[in-house]
Amino acid sequence: MYNNSIYLDYNATTPLADEVKEAIVSSFKFWRNPGSSYSLFEKMKILQARSNVAKMINTQTNNIIFTSSGTESNSTVIHSVLMKYRSLGKKIHIITSKIDHPSVKLPLINYSEMGLIDLTELPVNKYGFVSPQDLESNIRENTKLVTVMLANNETGVIQPISALSKVIQNYNRNHSKIHFHTDAAQAIGKIPVNVADLGVDSLTVVGHKFYGPRIGALFFKKPEEIIPIFYGGGQERNKRAGTENTNMIVGFGKACELVTKNISKYNKDMKNMRDYLENRLTEIMGSIGVGVVVNKKDPNTPRLPNTASIALVGKLLNAKLVLKHAPNLFASTAAACHSDDVEQRASQVLLDSHVPMELATNTLRISVGRSTTKKDVDMAIDYIKKSVTKLLNDN
Amino acid sequence: MYNNSIYLDYNATTPLADEVKEAIVSSFKFWRNPGSSYSLFEKMKILQARSNVAKMINTQTNNIIFTSSGTESNSTVIHSVLMKYRSLGKKIHIITSKIDHPSVKLPLINYSEMGLIDLTELPVNKYGFVSPQDLESNIRENTKLVTVMLANNETGVIQPISALSKVIQNYNRNHSKIHFHTDAAQAIGKIPVNVADLGVDSLTVVGHKFYGPRIGALFFKKPEEIIPIFYGGGQERNKRAGTENTNMIVGFGKACELVTKNISKYNKDMKNMRDYLENRLTEIMGSIGVGVVVNKKDPNTPRLPNTASIALVGKLLNAKLVLKHAPNLFASTAAACHSDDVEQRASQVLLDSHVPMELATNTLRISVGRSTTKKDVDMAIDYIKKSVTKLLNDN
Repeated sequence: MYNNSIYLDYNATTPLADEVKEAIVSSFKFWRNPGSSYSLFEKMKILQARSNVAKMINTQTNNIIFTSSGTESNSTVIHSVLMKYRSLGKKIHIITSKIDHPSVKLPLINYSEMGLIDLTELPVNKYGFVSPQDLESNIRENTKLVTVMLANNETGVIQPISALSKVIQNYNRNHSKIHFHTDAAQAIGKIPVNVADLGVDSLTVVGHKFYGPRIGALFFKKPEEIIPIFYGGGQERNKRAGTENTNMIVGFGKACELVTKNISKYNKDMKNMRDYLENRLTEIMGSIGVGVVVNKKDPNTPRLPNTASIALVGKLLNAKLVLKHAPNLFASTAAACHSDDVEQRASQVLLDSHVPMELATNTLRISVGRSTTKKDVDMAIDYIKKSVTKLLNDN
Repeated sequence: MYNNSIYLDYNATTPLADEVKEAIVSSFKFWRNPGSSYSLFEKMKILQARSNVAKMINTQTNNIIFTSSGTESNSTVIHSVLMKYRSLGKKIHIITSKIDHPSVKLPLINYSEMGLIDLTELPVNKYGFVSPQDLESNIRENTKLVTVMLANNETGVIQPISALSKVIQNYNRNHSKIHFHTDAAQAIGKIPVNVADLGVDSLTVVGHKFYGPRIGALFFKKPEEIIPIFYGGGQERNKRAGTENTNMIVGFGKACELVTKNISKYNKDMKNMRDYLENRLTEIMGSIGVGVVVNKKDPNTPRLPNTASIALVGKLLNAKLVLKHAPNLFASTAAACHSDDVEQRASQVLLDSHVPMELATNTLRISVGRSTTKKDVDMAIDYIKKSVTKLLNDN
């Protein structure tokens, strides 16, 4: 289908793990409506999957609900906080970061434009993360929700969620409570994620970023405080109506089980490959006189183990053009959801992360996966080298 | 797994058709993020599935968006109308029926309790359907949405959607526009569904009711008027954010293709089996002195071909008890989503459909599927007969 191609865009999505495929297929026989009183096996399978999600992030089964996507999980958190205070007739203030995912930022911007909330988008510092001091100084009397992603999808920078949580816990001691949410979409399956250590009130889980199906889950510390977006048949203990997608849920549970079991290995393997990629690309580009800047590669910046945000230095080396002339390399210049944008503009996330314009425009997002090999990386680099050579020679 | 069991609860859910399973499994290879610029095959597969949904209900590809469930499709319609007028600062009036599904009624009741809308729940007449005259006389100056299901999930009664549409079209000629929606969850795959004939502005499609996956779709005549519930990555032409669930979408498309191709056969086979069931059960029960009333079996009442709403006459023959003593028969007494309710109370839908209390309490919902055989029906009737005999003898 995609012959001779090298896929290095695992932050966009991942394939289903073989074990997940098997789990989905074997779950075809559990097709009865989990809401029917006779559907004992279906109820059991869903409970098991829920328990696997809970174990993966160190919480209890009751704190997990399944959703259709990370987008829905994020929206459920925002909706819950918004509706809670709406019913009290209070306009609230919400804080996110400039670099959070559109599924967090866009609903917030929308609510802000409707006049329903006050919104602050915190900048990140030169290292690419939100500083706890910045969060502290932006909390207002009516701040009710802080939502900051756990790891950025483009730079791979891991945000200091535990430290941000301490700021909030400190504030909550003497004030009315702020809910603290993190979107862990890009982090899970790459670094250990533990909701107790993070100190969050809620956390978004997305299956397809860790070799699982395209549904989501939501951790909520006090699930009774979820205010549903969907009302109907009473599924997910009345917190998310809609007949349970047993096949996807079973596959999701299996994907979580794999992460719980293998996270150290995944982390180490990906880091080895990513480091090899960054070093080798720098070396090869150097051999043809092209400079390479690895964005946010800094001892002060914790990064995801699999993500390389790499700028090729040179006026002719716009990242979209580089990829255009390397059609067998599947990588990206920004988040997948925006990759059809025609303009060859720089990613706003990179600019907001203090990557200079001339580098942002030239930045490739290359993200490795569990099975990426040195051979894959070498081939990818070769494709980039050929593309760069062509771009330099043609002009 | 479920040995010696007979499943006659196809209105609760259906298994995946073999062709659908195959389509899902073969789609595992189309795992790349459909939003990525290089994902040509994924985009193509989704387009093909969308086209299959459109063909099934006689509309254009552009009028279809995929959702996670029928619940989400219903909510999207309500949300779109609500938000349109909210931004204009107008309180609107919405009409539904007393017997619509909870995923329509509960959000409406919720909005009504919040003071955001005025709500009318139209009664159904003695035949079990909403009368066009009743709709006409309940339209108000601020009525902006009418949503009435195409076929009831418990009685199987088909609502006169075309006639209701004429009332609305007539009104719309001289007034501001009312949006007309129908939830076709239970109808599709059982009777031909054609959005042009129905004259609706939007229609809900639910895969798992017609041997497809547990996702949904939404027909919208003017898709530009959809106001999204989910904002984020811009999927579904900005109308429904969240990375596309390619596997489920491909399976959904295949399930639609099967319906388009085979609807006459499905309809006929199910009707034969359902009629056999109703007649044979009446006969067998008669032989042990138990009366049978088939709810809404009346020449004036169009019914789904597969649904039998059957009351056994007799004080001891509460339907929940009858099913309790027939553990190998999987049928129900009401919608699946409520089947875990402990109380042995009568279904409100039946009461609202003018089934007398003593019959409603004793009503079994038996719904046949594509592959139901006379042998299955005979076995089911035998289970019921044994259960009834036991209940009568024990008391």
